[in-house]
Amino acid sequence: MTKSISNKKNTKSNNVIWHRTLVDRTDRNQLNKHKSGILWFTGLSASGKSTIAHHLEKELYDRSIRTYVLDGDNVRHGINSNLGFSREDRRENLRRIAEFSKLFVDAGLIVLAAFISPYEKDREYIRGRFEEGDYFEIYVKCSLNKCEQRDPKGLYKKARAGIIKNYTGVSTPYEEPLSPDLVIDTEIFDLKKSVQEVLEFLNKKKFISI
Amino acid sequence: MTKSISNKKNTKSNNVIWHRTLVDRTDRNQLNKHKSGILWFTGLSASGKSTIAHHLEKELYDRSIRTYVLDGDNVRHGINSNLGFSREDRRENLRRIAEFSKLFVDAGLIVLAAFISPYEKDREYIRGRFEEGDYFEIYVKCSLNKCEQRDPKGLYKKARAGIIKNYTGVSTPYEEPLSPDLVIDTEIFDLKKSVQEVLEFLNKKKFISI
Repeated sequence: MTKSISNKKNTKSNNVIWHRTLVDRTDRNQLNKHKSGILWFTGLSASGKSTIAHHLEKELYDRSIRTYVLDGDNVRHGINSNLGFSREDRRENLRRIAEFSKLFVDAGLIVLAAFISPYEKDREYIRGRFEEGDYFEIYVKCSLNKCEQRDPKGLYKKARAGIIKNYTGVSTPYEEPLSPDLVIDTEIFDLKKSVQEVLEFLNKKKFISI
Repeated sequence: MTKSISNKKNTKSNNVIWHRTLVDRTDRNQLNKHKSGILWFTGLSASGKSTIAHHLEKELYDRSIRTYVLDGDNVRHGINSNLGFSREDRRENLRRIAEFSKLFVDAGLIVLAAFISPYEKDREYIRGRFEEGDYFEIYVKCSLNKCEQRDPKGLYKKARAGIIKNYTGVSTPYEEPLSPDLVIDTEIFDLKKSVQEVLEFLNKKKFISI
């Protein structure tokens, strides 16, 4: 905060000089009437990450909370369309996501990021890119067996058949989070209850009042 | 618009299935009470792009307009920190910026992007990534001679001395925009007048009412 405030200097209007930040995150949080931050949903494919994120977004929108969902749909086809699923590309994929998520948080939004993000080391890296109190890891827990049963897009089937390479849970590992801020077990909770759990978490962390 | 609306389908709350977009850009524009889009400021280093963008942002903030400034400061040090200034890296730099700007526009914000972006071909590519009416190119015009006189960070001097390579205007070209939506000549207009010109443009395009 101090850093942002110290950047707020007036510039002379008749002289174009090096710019200053005149509107900062604190101002935007004030305009939006809520804090900004990021919820990072991690879990196997078909565990329910994106579904929970999108339904949570609807609940937050109804409370006039500014959010944005980032997931494979809008990231892998756009900014990271030139990356694959090798260990190196997965790392760069998450690095870029972390960096532009920071801009979204600075812009005043609550980012709902839903990515498999299978490696603890990568998740720790992402957490480290945010300030304490801005980043929360939510483990969307579901057994591989159950995810394979759901298999809404038939991707597990293709991975088992060797058509898709480097598929998490099948040919590359998923490392369970060691210290998530919240665990949502989608084999126990239905969608409504899952979303409710996150809302209560956000309430506890004073992002919203429910 | 039709595309977004057709994605709005209800999901069964007791069954985690492939997610749907439940909140879209139209909803966010409605909540914010203004359209979203992108103003792309192009021009030589020290022409005044970032300064105009930041002062414009303050004016817009005071009207409760949600914006975000993207410039070298928050992009080159973050998401694009692994890119240099070769022709190839400049292209990838702008490609990534265009892609995550699209997400910001989808998130309901007016993006104020201030980048030298010296090549017409690259600017045309960026324009092509947006819908008609979402993207506007603003040429911040200033002669190389005047920019070198300003040289607020001493970068032109370093470029002339050969300490900085690939510096636009000195060792690589700046191609003047062929069909900008607005031209701001900072050798004629002071900062206040420059910002006012953009506000009037936004008013004409129905982004704001002044």
